[in-house]
Amino acid sequence: MDSRPIGVFDSGLGGLTAVRELTSLLPGEDIIYFGDTGRVPYGSRSRDTIIQYARQDVAFLRSFDLKAIVIACGTVSSTAMEVLERENPIPIIGVVEPSARAAAAASRNGVIGLIGTQATIRTGAYLRRIRALRPDVKLIDVACPLFVPLVENGRFRPGDIVVETVAREYLAPIKEAGADTLVLGCTHYPLLQDVLASEMGPGVALISSGAEGARAVRERLAAAGALNDPGRRGHCRFYVSDSIGGFVSLASVFLGHDVTGEVSRVDITRY
Amino acid sequence: MDSRPIGVFDSGLGGLTAVRELTSLLPGEDIIYFGDTGRVPYGSRSRDTIIQYARQDVAFLRSFDLKAIVIACGTVSSTAMEVLERENPIPIIGVVEPSARAAAAASRNGVIGLIGTQATIRTGAYLRRIRALRPDVKLIDVACPLFVPLVENGRFRPGDIVVETVAREYLAPIKEAGADTLVLGCTHYPLLQDVLASEMGPGVALISSGAEGARAVRERLAAAGALNDPGRRGHCRFYVSDSIGGFVSLASVFLGHDVTGEVSRVDITRY
Repeated sequence: MDSRPIGVFDSGLGGLTAVRELTSLLPGEDIIYFGDTGRVPYGSRSRDTIIQYARQDVAFLRSFDLKAIVIACGTVSSTAMEVLERENPIPIIGVVEPSARAAAAASRNGVIGLIGTQATIRTGAYLRRIRALRPDVKLIDVACPLFVPLVENGRFRPGDIVVETVAREYLAPIKEAGADTLVLGCTHYPLLQDVLASEMGPGVALISSGAEGARAVRERLAAAGALNDPGRRGHCRFYVSDSIGGFVSLASVFLGHDVTGEVSRVDITRY
Repeated sequence: MDSRPIGVFDSGLGGLTAVRELTSLLPGEDIIYFGDTGRVPYGSRSRDTIIQYARQDVAFLRSFDLKAIVIACGTVSSTAMEVLERENPIPIIGVVEPSARAAAAASRNGVIGLIGTQATIRTGAYLRRIRALRPDVKLIDVACPLFVPLVENGRFRPGDIVVETVAREYLAPIKEAGADTLVLGCTHYPLLQDVLASEMGPGVALISSGAEGARAVRERLAAAGALNDPGRRGHCRFYVSDSIGGFVSLASVFLGHDVTGEVSRVDITRY
């Protein structure tokens, strides 16, 4: 048993969908979350800027005594996973590997769609991982730069012509290719689940990278005997790099409930 | 005559619409532009984060010997103008005052609409300046958080149902109030000019904050005898805080022509 908290970070608020899955799968665990709200979004930035920011995010989290760090961000998982693992002697769990495994297992016809930020798609990280598991797979990947701002502005519900039009355009090549599996390669996208499912049509499996990441955390901690007492009720502490007020009002949309834990502000450029 | 360059900065690329106006009005002037592409957008961030970033932007520009600094950003002009002027012994020209003057002069019926980022609208800076000039004015201000991501993703042309739907929603209260003048309080918005003009209908004056800012620069430099030789051809140098490649490909959309000057990267957190 390991009673230390799990660190989780994201460029902003999307990672809270992974926190929601984590607290549902592992209610006994304490979580320390960092959202880089002062520099969000990461998905449109260059590789070296994303790596620089991710290093600071991890350095901040490591100022706590943690048992593992979860990269609850498709962009950072795709871009900086190897660098962060190499530089930090602590288990680091990203979302790419678990989502790739789930997609490779779910697809019957071997045609898989992937949606993510520009940076995520640029890296080809999902493609490499899926191909390593199933070399026959045909992967159609599409960068969806408008999904994050649409979600953050509350435009993720079916019936909204704006998000439905954007989703239709982004998903067109994936539908045309006959994909039976769609990887939501960004932790903002679970909020778009209904819009995406309706656009893709019945019989298409949607793989949520945050949920797969959370499952991978459970597996890894269980294998190491490092889970906390499942009988207790864990708590979350939140840290952000911009104002606390802005975080609290939006966070509940991603968490699915009001923010109950303590929220603090941190100057991330000091790390 | 003063042959020193003019410094211009913005949270990202929107300020290039002001550079375009400046080089058209004052072709003899040299310009040093800084775009904070590693931390864009500013408009959804808190007041103190915007002030912190703006201080660094100005500190970087002041590492050159400049004759004036132009805040080519509605968000920074609304939020940090007083702080920056107080702390820096160099002429600083923002976009709020010149746009407020133009709007107060243009409106016949005294009903003025204002669109801008969340941060710009929150400050009430435009309202205060317009009311100081014309106390009878009725101002309807609307935060338009999706306009910047839409423009940066190339979705600003008439006929695009996504941007037209978003524009219709944002402008509805301004149209309903019968505004005869619309202030484009963000330097990204000139690219939306056709969509906005068509949605507002004929007879509504559109005030571009970047163009008004550029006119104010000409006035102020001329009054101080600080214009450069108008017979020469000025040149621009560009600095950005994220990768140069990403900048060059998008910048031409805002400049209206290819980037011809030198482009360099700067670590803005050092300032």
